[in-house]
Amino acid sequence: MTSVISLLTDYGLDDGYVAACHGVIATISPDSRIIDVCHLIPAGDVRRAAAILAQTIAYLPPGVHVAVVDPGGGSRRAVAIEAGDHVFLGPDNGVLSWAVHASGGARAAYELANEDFFRKPVSPTFHGRDVFASAAAHLTLGRNPAELGPEIPLDRLVSLPEPTSVIREGAVEGEVLSVDSHGNAQLSISSGDLATLGVQPGSTLVVWLGRRQVSVPFRETFAAVPLGELVAFTDSAGLIALAVNSGDASQRLGLPPGARVRLSLAS
Amino acid sequence: MTSVISLLTDYGLDDGYVAACHGVIATISPDSRIIDVCHLIPAGDVRRAAAILAQTIAYLPPGVHVAVVDPGGGSRRAVAIEAGDHVFLGPDNGVLSWAVHASGGARAAYELANEDFFRKPVSPTFHGRDVFASAAAHLTLGRNPAELGPEIPLDRLVSLPEPTSVIREGAVEGEVLSVDSHGNAQLSISSGDLATLGVQPGSTLVVWLGRRQVSVPFRETFAAVPLGELVAFTDSAGLIALAVNSGDASQRLGLPPGARVRLSLAS
Amino acid sequence: MTSVISLLTDYGLDDGYVAACHGVIATISPDSRIIDVCHLIPAGDVRRAAAILAQTIAYLPPGVHVAVVDPGGGSRRAVAIEAGDHVFLGPDNGVLSWAVHASGGARAAYELANEDFFRKPVSPTFHGRDVFASAAAHLTLGRNPAELGPEIPLDRLVSLPEPTSVIREGAVEGEVLSVDSHGNAQLSISSGDLATLGVQPGSTLVVWLGRRQVSVPFRETFAAVPLGELVAFTDSAGLIALAVNSGDASQRLGLPPGARVRLSLAS
Repeated sequence: MTSVISLLTDYGLDDGYVAACHGVIATISPDSRIIDVCHLIPAGDVRRAAAILAQTIAYLPPGVHVAVVDPGGGSRRAVAIEAGDHVFLGPDNGVLSWAVHASGGARAAYELANEDFFRKPVSPTFHGRDVFASAAAHLTLGRNPAELGPEIPLDRLVSLPEPTSVIREGAVEGEVLSVDSHGNAQLSISSGDLATLGVQPGSTLVVWLGRRQVSVPFRETFAAVPLGELVAFTDSAGLIALAVNSGDASQRLGLPPGARVRLSLAS
Repeated sequence: MTSVISLLTDYGLDDGYVAACHGVIATISPDSRIIDVCHLIPAGDVRRAAAILAQTIAYLPPGVHVAVVDPGGGSRRAVAIEAGDHVFLGPDNGVLSWAVHASGGARAAYELANEDFFRKPVSPTFHGRDVFASAAAHLTLGRNPAELGPEIPLDRLVSLPEPTSVIREGAVEGEVLSVDSHGNAQLSISSGDLATLGVQPGSTLVVWLGRRQVSVPFRETFAAVPLGELVAFTDSAGLIALAVNSGDASQRLGLPPGARVRLSLAS
Repeated sequence: MTSVISLLTDYGLDDGYVAACHGVIATISPDSRIIDVCHLIPAGDVRRAAAILAQTIAYLPPGVHVAVVDPGGGSRRAVAIEAGDHVFLGPDNGVLSWAVHASGGARAAYELANEDFFRKPVSPTFHGRDVFASAAAHLTLGRNPAELGPEIPLDRLVSLPEPTSVIREGAVEGEVLSVDSHGNAQLSISSGDLATLGVQPGSTLVVWLGRRQVSVPFRETFAAVPLGELVAFTDSAGLIALAVNSGDASQRLGLPPGARVRLSLAS
C-alpha cells in the first residue's frame, strides 16, 4: 500500500519549516508519499485553509491529511478525525471541519495525547513538525487512530460556520468564500442556487455590491468573454466565481474574502 | 519501471490546484514520480511556459510531460504529442512546440478525446486536473497514446514561431526570450551566433538597445565581473544571457521579454 | 534502502532550474526521494542558507544534502563533507559549515573532481545541476564519497564564523541571525544564555536596540500575548525569537538580519 500524507500550512516557502515536516515523515515512514496541498495560506487564516482543503480533498487519495493553521499557537487541542477514507489531523479550531463535512462527516475523533506518536522533545512552537507530521507518519505504518489518545465526542469538535447562501425576493445572497491567486472571487453561491433563479449559461446576471449593480455574463468558462471583461461561471468546486478574463476580479469589483454579494437574473 | 510525470502550469502556489493534479495522479498511478517543472508561469504566458519546458526537457527522464498554460480556457483542442522518449500533453496552442522540437520533433499526435482517460465529471474550467493529469497518469500505467483519440496530422499542430536571430552588417539581432527570477535576460542569440562574429570569452560586446549602446564584457560566467557589473555569458541552454553579478540586468537595461537586442564585437 | 537527497538553493521557483536538478537526480537514481529544503534563499545569501540548513538538518533522514548558494559562481572549489549520517555537497564557501557543525563536525572532505560523477557537458553557470545534483544522485547508488576526488584537509575548509552571543554587565549581546517569512527575528542568543541571566518564561525582557529600549514579555509561545503584541520566546531551534503575534516583528522593531541586539532582565 502506498501511504499518502497531505500537508496544508501557513509556514510559507522562505524557510526550512516545510522541509522539517517532510524530513520527520520520511524518517519515520520512508515509503510514504507526501502531497503538499498549499503552504502559502495567509498566516493564521483558518477559513481560507479550511476552504482549500475542503475543495481539494475529493481529488486526494485515501490517506492522512494534516492542516496546521493555528493563530492560537499550541494552546488548542490537537485532534484526529476519521471521515470517509481519510484521517484528518490538525488543531481543533475548525480548520478541518469543512473537509470533514465534504468527506461525509466525522465517524470518530481522538485527542492527540499519546506521546509515542510525537517527535521528542516537542517544541512548544512547532507542533506541525513534532506532533502532527510525526503522528501522520506513524499512522501510515498501520497504527490505529484510536491509539492517539482519548476519544472526543463528535459534538465537542470546533466547527467553522458553513458558508451560506439565501434565496429571497428573486435573488440569491452569499459571500466571497475565497480569492485565488488569479483574483477570481469564489462565492458561497452554487450553480444549483442560480438554476433555482432560472439562470443558465448564456444568461446575464446582475451582481449587487452594496448599492452598486454590475451586469455580468454567466458563461461556461471565463474564456467565453473577451480579454479584460467580467464573467461569472461555475468553478471546478461547483460554486459561482466572478472573474475577469486574464485580469483580477476581486480588485476590479472591490471584493475581498467575506464580502457580501447578491445575484439576480437580469430582466 | 519508474513512471515520471512532469507538470508545468500557471496555477500559482497560493491555492490547492496543483495538489488536486498531484492527487488525481497519485490515485490513478500510486507509484508514479511527479516533477514540478514550474507553477509560477505568469497567467496565460504561453511563450514563457514554452521556453522553460524546452530548456528543461533535456534534463528530465523519459516520461509524460504536462504543460497547461491556456489563455483560451478549455476551448482549444487538447493534444498528446510523441517526441523522443517523451509524450507531451497540453492544449494545442503552441505551449508544447518548442519542447517537442528540442526533443527531435513530433513523431505522432493524438487528440485527447477518449473519456476513459478523463476524471469525470470533467470541469469545464479545470482541464489540467480532469483531462491532462488524469490522462498522464493512465499513460504511466502502460496505456498507448494512440488510445487517447484520433490521430492528428503533424502539420495541423499549432506551433509558436521559433525565436530567431539574424546576422547582418557585422552584428547579430535577436530578442529577449525570457527573464529569469534573478533578472538575467536570456536572448534568442546563441553562442554560435557570437562565434560567427569573432566574439569569444574575454571579448567586449557592444549591446545596442534602440539608440543606446552599452559596452559589456563577454565572460565564461557572471562571476567573472565584480559585484554589480554587467556581463554577458553563455547560459546553461547555450544562449547568450545579459546579467548583472548579484543584480537585475533586465531592470538595469530596460529589457523585458520580447525586447529587440543587437550585439556586435567592440572594436 | 530509501535514498534521500535534500536540495537548498537560491534558484527561486519562477524558472525550471529546480526541476532540472530533480530531473537529473531522477534519471540517475530513479528510486531516490528528494526533499526540497528551500529554494527561496535571497540570491547569494550564503549566511541565510547556512542557518536554514543547520536548523533543519536534525529533522532530515540520513542522506546526501546539497546546498548551492554561490555568489562566486563556479569559481570556488566544490566539496563533499562527511558528518554524522550525512554527506553534504556544495561550494566551499561556508554554506555547509554550520550544518556540518550541527551534525557533529566533519569526518572527511573531498574535492568534487572526478568527472564520472558529473552530467556532461558541465555548464559553467549551472553546477547545481551538472555537478552537485548529479554527484548526489550517484552517491545514492552506493558510490563512495572518497571516489569524488582528492581528500581535503579539514582545516582547509572554508567556514562561516559561528554567530556569537556574549554575556556582560548583566546583559547578553548577539545579533539577528535570520528573519523568517512571518517577520520573526531569530537571534544568535540561546535560551541557555537567558537562563544564565535569570530570565525564565513569565519574565519581562528589556530589548536594547541601539539607544532605544523596549519591554518585551518572555513567554512559552508567541500565542501567549494578545494579537499585535510583541513577545520573545524560545523557537524550535532553541534560540530566542522576537515576534509579534500575527504581525511582523522585524519590521516593527527595525531588525534586519545582522542587526545587533542586547537583552537583559527587566528589574
